[in-house]
Amino acid sequence: MPKEFLNEDFMLQNGTAKILYHDYAKDMPIFDYHCHLPPQDVANNRRFENLTQIWLGGDHYKWRAMRTNGVDERFITGDASDEEKFMAWAGTVAYTARNPLFHWTHLELKRPFGITGKILNPETAKEIYDHCNELLQTDKFHARGIMEQMNVKVVCTTDDPIDDLANHKLIKQDSTFKIKVLPAFRPDKAMAIESPENFNAYVDKLAKAAGMQIESVQGMVEALRKRHEYFHQMGSRLSDHALELPYAEDYTMAEIEAIFTKVRQGKTVGREEVLKFKSMMMYEFAVMNAEKNWIMQLHCNSIRNLNSRLMKVLGPDTGFDAVGDYEMANPLAKFLDRLDQKNQLPKTIIYTLNPKDNEVIGTVMGCFQDGSFPGKIQFGSGWWFNDQKDGMIRQIEALSQLGLLSRFIGMLTDSRSFLSYPRHEYFRRILCNIIGTDVENGELPNDTKWLGKMVQDISYNNAVNYFGIKVD
Amino acid sequence: MPKEFLNEDFMLQNGTAKILYHDYAKDMPIFDYHCHLPPQDVANNRRFENLTQIWLGGDHYKWRAMRTNGVDERFITGDASDEEKFMAWAGTVAYTARNPLFHWTHLELKRPFGITGKILNPETAKEIYDHCNELLQTDKFHARGIMEQMNVKVVCTTDDPIDDLANHKLIKQDSTFKIKVLPAFRPDKAMAIESPENFNAYVDKLAKAAGMQIESVQGMVEALRKRHEYFHQMGSRLSDHALELPYAEDYTMAEIEAIFTKVRQGKTVGREEVLKFKSMMMYEFAVMNAEKNWIMQLHCNSIRNLNSRLMKVLGPDTGFDAVGDYEMANPLAKFLDRLDQKNQLPKTIIYTLNPKDNEVIGTVMGCFQDGSFPGKIQFGSGWWFNDQKDGMIRQIEALSQLGLLSRFIGMLTDSRSFLSYPRHEYFRRILCNIIGTDVENGELPNDTKWLGKMVQDISYNNAVNYFGIKVD
Amino acid sequence: MPKEFLNEDFMLQNGTAKILYHDYAKDMPIFDYHCHLPPQDVANNRRFENLTQIWLGGDHYKWRAMRTNGVDERFITGDASDEEKFMAWAGTVAYTARNPLFHWTHLELKRPFGITGKILNPETAKEIYDHCNELLQTDKFHARGIMEQMNVKVVCTTDDPIDDLANHKLIKQDSTFKIKVLPAFRPDKAMAIESPENFNAYVDKLAKAAGMQIESVQGMVEALRKRHEYFHQMGSRLSDHALELPYAEDYTMAEIEAIFTKVRQGKTVGREEVLKFKSMMMYEFAVMNAEKNWIMQLHCNSIRNLNSRLMKVLGPDTGFDAVGDYEMANPLAKFLDRLDQKNQLPKTIIYTLNPKDNEVIGTVMGCFQDGSFPGKIQFGSGWWFNDQKDGMIRQIEALSQLGLLSRFIGMLTDSRSFLSYPRHEYFRRILCNIIGTDVENGELPNDTKWLGKMVQDISYNNAVNYFGIKVD
Repeated sequence: MPKEFLNEDFMLQNGTAKILYHDYAKDMPIFDYHCHLPPQDVANNRRFENLTQIWLGGDHYKWRAMRTNGVDERFITGDASDEEKFMAWAGTVAYTARNPLFHWTHLELKRPFGITGKILNPETAKEIYDHCNELLQTDKFHARGIMEQMNVKVVCTTDDPIDDLANHKLIKQDSTFKIKVLPAFRPDKAMAIESPENFNAYVDKLAKAAGMQIESVQGMVEALRKRHEYFHQMGSRLSDHALELPYAEDYTMAEIEAIFTKVRQGKTVGREEVLKFKSMMMYEFAVMNAEKNWIMQLHCNSIRNLNSRLMKVLGPDTGFDAVGDYEMANPLAKFLDRLDQKNQLPKTIIYTLNPKDNEVIGTVMGCFQDGSFPGKIQFGSGWWFNDQKDGMIRQIEALSQLGLLSRFIGMLTDSRSFLSYPRHEYFRRILCNIIGTDVENGELPNDTKWLGKMVQDISYNNAVNYFGIKVD
Repeated sequence: MPKEFLNEDFMLQNGTAKILYHDYAKDMPIFDYHCHLPPQDVANNRRFENLTQIWLGGDHYKWRAMRTNGVDERFITGDASDEEKFMAWAGTVAYTARNPLFHWTHLELKRPFGITGKILNPETAKEIYDHCNELLQTDKFHARGIMEQMNVKVVCTTDDPIDDLANHKLIKQDSTFKIKVLPAFRPDKAMAIESPENFNAYVDKLAKAAGMQIESVQGMVEALRKRHEYFHQMGSRLSDHALELPYAEDYTMAEIEAIFTKVRQGKTVGREEVLKFKSMMMYEFAVMNAEKNWIMQLHCNSIRNLNSRLMKVLGPDTGFDAVGDYEMANPLAKFLDRLDQKNQLPKTIIYTLNPKDNEVIGTVMGCFQDGSFPGKIQFGSGWWFNDQKDGMIRQIEALSQLGLLSRFIGMLTDSRSFLSYPRHEYFRRILCNIIGTDVENGELPNDTKWLGKMVQDISYNNAVNYFGIKVD
Repeated sequence: MPKEFLNEDFMLQNGTAKILYHDYAKDMPIFDYHCHLPPQDVANNRRFENLTQIWLGGDHYKWRAMRTNGVDERFITGDASDEEKFMAWAGTVAYTARNPLFHWTHLELKRPFGITGKILNPETAKEIYDHCNELLQTDKFHARGIMEQMNVKVVCTTDDPIDDLANHKLIKQDSTFKIKVLPAFRPDKAMAIESPENFNAYVDKLAKAAGMQIESVQGMVEALRKRHEYFHQMGSRLSDHALELPYAEDYTMAEIEAIFTKVRQGKTVGREEVLKFKSMMMYEFAVMNAEKNWIMQLHCNSIRNLNSRLMKVLGPDTGFDAVGDYEMANPLAKFLDRLDQKNQLPKTIIYTLNPKDNEVIGTVMGCFQDGSFPGKIQFGSGWWFNDQKDGMIRQIEALSQLGLLSRFIGMLTDSRSFLSYPRHEYFRRILCNIIGTDVENGELPNDTKWLGKMVQDISYNNAVNYFGIKVD
């Protein structure tokens, strides 16, 4: 007898899994240490006009699915009305069976909107749209209200070093809002010398933000350090880096200055020079992190903006990125070792977009666990294309077999939407099911108190301890 | 209580899976859009003397298994009698437990031969051999009869551009035979400049087939275009390419003409020149396909003829190929993007022999889905070494999580034998079991009408729509 | 109702699995064809003072787990007392849930120590420590006693070509000890020209061991061949090679002599020269093996000593190695083909530390199975970081689908400890569960006699036949 779709025990296939989830994991708060929420939406406590704006507005997962399903771009990012766009999505949902979008969609309609027992399709779409739009006008469904409903305690956004963090300041000053919204330092543009034009414009802005002249790489690093310090004052405790692979080329500062000079003159540089420059920058960022006991996040093996034609029309972050397959083992080890040799290796979270790297990360990180902090080097949770059932299971399995699952800092949303918090629920259900299955099979002792604590640690406590951010 | 081997519900582990298979998938026709059947065997409606000829004659899967099992080559490809060869295979079957050969063997004996409740082994071999040989003399077991029994509607063979397609013409002219047997354009030899001798002989044949002189690469492309046009007139709608990786090197036509001239003079060229030449050719083939709205099949990450000693004795396609592990992400993206930029990207099916590429393909293809056709870019089904349970499950899982399974055009045999159609049954059973399990677990709604249609689409309808070939 | 942890049917989830394990696998002897046991400990029949010495003394798996768990190095490899170290481990065990250490720990306490129904934790630690220490003073728990208790028949150690094998001689001469303890030829240092200093010191020792001058590479190969011959006389039948990847560069002997000369002069050589030199050496070792009908073991895709800081303090083999991700397909095929062309390809076991290679190995090896011996080329069992549940399942699945599982020579411990034999039990339980599940599901015939024999073959018989070592 098939179980009801999305019932209370969704993804929980046995008794122990149900106990672990309902009695231990479910009510833990959320520490969302990496997301792309716009801070101004929290500062302004944004009210969304309709479900399209809050749900489809920036969600390139849904856009990709619609394109694959033969939907015209007009109904995705084009000039169709919000309602037309919503109907286009509603017409696509049935075709997403077995894709995480099918689960996320109905989990998100359930929480926070309270819609159950309904599949989103062209017949139910209008009713769901109107119902949600009405709710979105109420306080509990403004940006902050949703975060409070979802039991969020801390959120770390993703911010450019040149950002003045004005919105973060506003949020901090508002004592009525208890959720911590902290910036994270994402200096990708400071390494992107592939485009001298963009890079030079960026350096100029950076100089302004740091209140200094930038005449050399040394100066540029100095400016970044000032911004890092400013972020620290604003409560930031982590940096974030989008990488093809961990850059760990050999270089001399003389070489780097020569490359910098060339780029500042508007000249194009070769692949080797790009890699050397990025290797230097990543080393310097890591040192800044180590000095301030920050956490460093490496997001590896993604390749971006692959569709030139649509990049021109739609810009970046619109659904044209993919999983890369660079070799990771040697550069990752070399990157970490170089820092470790100087006692400058910060706490580090290593994510990969390619699950073929799971075993490499799971074992390389073990070489840099030195007893100084439990789980000092973390294997980041199933990320982006991998934050689905299969991807999460594989990450959890590799981490379990090759490291210590019990020390894992768990899930994050990585999302641009306030409706993505059920991804934590999804992760916790999958985690509880895995552990519960082991217990049922006699592969773990039937000690739910112990394992329940482990589940709570992975859901929340480990992150609190790891980031060292005080939570009320 | 163990279930009976190969019972009616083989591979179907729950109630929903059984409903999906028996009520929806089982009776769907077969659209076998890629195989290696010899067209003359269909044209002549070949009668096979015995089971060895139809079953072991060209099956390098079985040959590899026998070699691994310590069987002497005499009983595999050598001068032993057909019956001796059959007995050698019968003695190997028990050692293939858990290999797809064990399943295929008994599925194929069941359909079309009607043999059930028997395992092929030295004790049962003679009886099975005699029984099948007798059946093979009857009309229903001649080439066409088997295809009709198996409910095949369309077959696409694999043909060289220089082929005159005489057998396809004969088949087309015979109005008593309702199954469509269409050619597919496989121009591998037109890119194989590694061997100047073979390549030059091929260019001469191509010139003859195209009825023109070939004095330059431009001329060669022109000749291939003529043949492409001829294949189109003969009903072909797809090309097929055996690749190490998607060739996407930068090149100029001046460089290519120089390489061509060198090879035409009988000179050997280096790896870089080979890659440039193939990159140019693949681009041109893709443009031809786009212009005629054909489908392009990329078969990636295979490495071939690895055993030099036995290659000399036995030639190619005798069981000495393997899974390659080239990096795929960047070249695949570059290949597709180059075409897309010029609006010349045809519908494309991307296969890999290495399951480590599954996530790369599953996400790179998403960057080129542009809403113009549902499932325009396809992730090809578990292919060759991967058309077994584990390989199929992994391909289905990656496609599900990263793309739209519902738009998948499904299975093909890729086989040289008329007895391989049960691979479609095998695939459908595995597909139904995966979807059924989700329903049983509450991970998909219990709506068998909807999911049954999805299964039927993947089994047959999607291929019909995708290829745009009219079927009676 | 959860099953009891580590009950008699541990890892056996169905009736057929239980029959296969208890009636067929469980009582098979152990042929441990690759381990790192110190021969002197067998020769001297070492008595271990306490559990720390026999269990934690050389176990870098446990060390890594402790470091990850935040334990200070003092309690791992430092100057803490044995009991303190044991308590540090006991405090870590609970944090290893889902890691193989959690299973191994309790399997090893069960056999040979007879401890059941207890989890090792700080509360139980003292009692367990004292109990085991007491047992360790009795005959049955001396080195040889443990081996006898565990039903070991053959052990192959890992030995340097310059080793005089004095301990092996002592063991051989002792007619009261029935277990065969044979040397294996591990000439890694003879290829390690990266460090001229270490290499040159090694060449000098090799010359002494071989009783000859070494003036050239030819001479060096000659000296190694003498040692190979000596190992053969001492009963060795296999070599073992720790590799990044199978070295198969093109080279001429003139090039190699030039490289050798350079290194002998104390000069550093480049990466390309290193690869050429190793390619030559591996070819020569393979030829020696082929001539004597030895087995060659290739251990691929490991990267070592990644933590420079701790390497200086602790030396090699202390827990700072990881999974590499070199491309394997082309070099592996080229290496095997080069030998096969000259009819010099010995029986070969190919291991990888990276499961992404599973499909490459599973298919490349099929190209070199030539019918001369069943399972001539073997896919080595889940090795090192992969000798855990997930790693074993994946290796067994890939081998099953791509080769002949029935011809597999099965498990080994690869361990430095006399307490690691339960890894064979762990493997057998997993193997029986996989096959049993297929039977339960109707995917294999319910013929436990046939499948039981297959399980016995994989557990023991295949190794006996493959190695051709006479066992009492």
